[in-house]
This record gives sequence, structure tokens and C-alpha cells, in this order.
Amino acid sequence: MEGYAFTLEMHVRDYECDIQGIVNNGIYQNYLEHARHVYLKQIGVDFAALAKEGIHLVVVRAELDYKQPLQTGDDFVVGLNMKRESQLRFAFYQDIFRLPDKNLILSAKIIGTALNPQGRPAIPEELERHLAE
Amino acid sequence: MEGYAFTLEMHVRDYECDIQGIVNNGIYQNYLEHARHVYLKQIGVDFAALAKEGIHLVVVRAELDYKQPLQTGDDFVVGLNMKRESQLRFAFYQDIFRLPDKNLILSAKIIGTALNPQGRPAIPEELERHLAE
Amino acid sequence: MEGYAFTLEMHVRDYECDIQGIVNNGIYQNYLEHARHVYLKQIGVDFAALAKEGIHLVVVRAELDYKQPLQTGDDFVVGLNMKRESQLRFAFYQDIFRLPDKNLILSAKIIGTALNPQGRPAIPEELERHLAE
Amino acid sequence: MEGYAFTLEMHVRDYECDIQGIVNNGIYQNYLEHARHVYLKQIGVDFAALAKEGIHLVVVRAELDYKQPLQTGDDFVVGLNMKRESQLRFAFYQDIFRLPDKNLILSAKIIGTALNPQGRPAIPEELERHLAE
Repeated sequence: MEGYAFTLEMHVRDYECDIQGIVNNGIYQNYLEHARHVYLKQIGVDFAALAKEGIHLVVVRAELDYKQPLQTGDDFVVGLNMKRESQLRFAFYQDIFRLPDKNLILSAKIIGTALNPQGRPAIPEELERHLAE
Repeated sequence: MEGYAFTLEMHVRDYECDIQGIVNNGIYQNYLEHARHVYLKQIGVDFAALAKEGIHLVVVRAELDYKQPLQTGDDFVVGLNMKRESQLRFAFYQDIFRLPDKNLILSAKIIGTALNPQGRPAIPEELERHLAE
Repeated sequence: MEGYAFTLEMHVRDYECDIQGIVNNGIYQNYLEHARHVYLKQIGVDFAALAKEGIHLVVVRAELDYKQPLQTGDDFVVGLNMKRESQLRFAFYQDIFRLPDKNLILSAKIIGTALNPQGRPAIPEELERHLAE
Repeated sequence: MEGYAFTLEMHVRDYECDIQGIVNNGIYQNYLEHARHVYLKQIGVDFAALAKEGIHLVVVRAELDYKQPLQTGDDFVVGLNMKRESQLRFAFYQDIFRLPDKNLILSAKIIGTALNPQGRPAIPEELERHLAE
């Protein structure tokens, strides 16, 4: 997948599908979050370790466009780019494609910020470094 | 709660909270979906029964603004209004407030459509009736 | 429901149902956990507050007998009794009945212990009080 | 992993962890179910396809021994053996080990049966073949 800073391949699990036999709407946010956390950890930003220090990465807005549903047995890939959105906010542009046909399943923009132990917005240094320029 | 066609009170369950000790981002979509389905059933539109007939109510876009997190032990209410978005689309405006202080937790706009057994967008008659104004 | 120290009424949510149109196996553990936590909080044992102090209530064994499935739209009640299992273990006997017909859906025995901040089994005083007979 | 008919490697996702920072009890049933379904599909028994035909593989009893918790970031493997339990029941013996240290996390015995479109216990031929001897 060209054009993405990070990609993660995953597989639909049957318990993620609902009465309609397709992946439930809410589950896509799980997929997206998991891809973000794996990416962040890879660049040195550990969601769980930060939480223990009282630094919380939080989502402030999510926009999800559902194009086609994933079904039981489907493989898919999550592509991700991260950009600065404003001084205290960053955005993840995430797309999900079914494999192997690369049909677009979902496009999302997830805007986040970070809260310091005092609950104030403040982007931790290890993340700031990757948002620079 | 004034200003909503429908409201549903719920309670945070501990298993819905994540490492940060707050309700996980994806869980709010579960809350919103549950409120929509209870509302729809009440006005005579049964999600599960329609699915058995091959008529699928599907989400095409979700916009969620996260204002404050819910925590373990919190009670909350989901307020809902449904409006026609276009000829083949309808929108749910949904807000979540913590109880009893009525702090705004999340505001969402969820746009949906319906697919007939042939997979074509077509709003079922029992829903159409409630979208006419 | 006679014969239970605590009961909690709940309602199946559509997102808890899977491809078969029935509540997914794993979801019953969510129902049971939620009932246990509400009960424990009511008798003065707060799972989340204890976790913050480093005291962890943990499940060591679960036995679940699935009798009949719950379906979309079902109401149900969880009945619960708590008993000492051994010096360092306690057991929850939990049954789920569909409402209003009171058909037995699931019977479970969940055995737990508590770990102190050093990771050693030790039942906190507020729980010990309720296990004495 | 020797001694298992099938193994599946997986990775803990942060949203599967709860307030205690460890994988929630109910999530292990998800892991176990996913491993069973992947195994069954591999031997020609497709859970979702069978459900569409009205043939339902169902769990009748689950026994889970929790030895140690999985945590955020952990890799693990699910090992599985399937055996006939009685004429109309089959059992999965499933163990979860953390990787790479192979510490035992959970041991489970999951007993299942199959229901035909009339709701009567009847093991489908493609599964029967693998339970023989």
C-alpha cells in the first residue's frame, strides 16, 4: 500500500460480526485504534505506558465514512497517516481496504490530543517530535 | 431532557472501561446504536426483523465529538432526534449527557440508509412514514 | 426471584448478537461480571476503587453451562449468590433467566480471589466481612 | 508448540484491556472462539456458512482456568485439540501461552454440539468425519 506511513494487516473475527452477518459499526473503531496504537508504539509513543504516567492520549473527534462492509472471513489492511491538526491537536487519516481486492471499506479522520497529569492539553515530547515541520 | 424525540438512560459497565479507567472510544458507538435500535423498534422499525427479511439499515457516516469521558459507575442518558438527510438518507442527532449533572459527554451525527434485498438503497415504508414532515 | 442475594435486570442489545442472531458466548461473561460488580459495590466493595489502590479482584475459574440462547430484544435477570470457596477464594453462583417466562438461559460458577498490591492472594477486609458466616 | 492439532498466534489489543490494565475475563472467550473457528474452517467446517444453512454450532459448557493475566503488548498463542465428548457432543481443549516465554495463561475445555435447522442436536457430516475413531 503506497501513500501510507504505516499499514497493519488484520483478519475479521466471527464474534465481531453482528445479526446482519457483517462487521458491526463500532468494531471499526477498535480496528482503527489498534492500528494507531501499534503505529505509535513503533515510533516510541506507548499509549499504555503514558497512561500509567498520567498522560492520556484522547480522541476529540472521529469522522468515519463507511463505504462497504467487511464480512466474516475477510482479510483487510489499515493504512495510516498522522498529521498535526493544530497546536494541541493531531489527526490520523486512516483507510481500511479489503484484501486481496483492495476495495475501500472505510475512510476515517480521527483527531486527538494529549492531556498531562493535571488534565491540561499538552503534547508529550516523544509525540511532538513526529509532528514537527 | 427536553428537545429530544427519544431518550434512553444507561449505566457504564466496568468492562466497557479501558486502561485509562474511562469508557473506550468505540463503546460510545455501541451506546448510540443501542439507543437508535430501541427508538426505531418503538416507532415500528425493527432492525433485527428487517435484517431477517434482507432489508439492512446501515450507517454510511458517523461524526462523533468527544467532549468529556464517562467513567466507571457513571449513569448517563442518550438523547436522539431523527431527520431526513436526503432522499435516500436519514440522520440521527445523538447527544450523551452524564447524570445527574447533565454534563455533555458526546455529540454525534450518524447518517444512515437502508438497503433492500437486492442491495439497492431504498427506505422501507415503516421508516419512510416517520421521515416525512 | 427468590433464593438470590442479589438480582439485576438487563436487556439484550443488538450489537451483542452475532451471525447466528443470538447473544455471543463471550457476552454472557460481560453480563455476569457487570452483575457481580454492581452487587459488590452495593455491599461496599468497589472493584474500580480497589484497582486504583493496587488491590485486584480476579477470576481464577469460570464454569458456564449454556442452556438456551438469549436473542435480540430479550429481557433477562441475573441472580447471584456469593459464598466462601476456601480461605483465599470466593465463589459466585450466577443464573440468567429470560423474562418474563423465567426460562433458564445460563448457570455459572465463577471463582475469584483478590491480590494485594504485592501480588499476593489476600481478601480485603470489606469483602472478608461478607464471606464470614 | 507440540501436542496441539492447531495453534494460532495473536496479539493483545489495548481496547481488550480493562481498568486493571489486563485483558478482561470475557475477552479470552473471544480469543478461544476465534481460534476454534479458524481451525474448523481449515478442516472444512465453516461456522458462518453453516449458520446461513440453519445449522448452528453452539457451546453447551465452558470451563476456564485463569492462571495469569495477559497484558497490553503481549503476544500469545492458542493451542487446540478437538475430541468427541459423547455421541452428540464434542470438546475443545484449548490453552493460551504468552510468547515468547510460553508461560501458561489459561486452560479451557469448551464443550459444543450442533443443532440442525429443526433445532435438534445433530453433528454435520463434515465435522463428524473429524471426530471419528
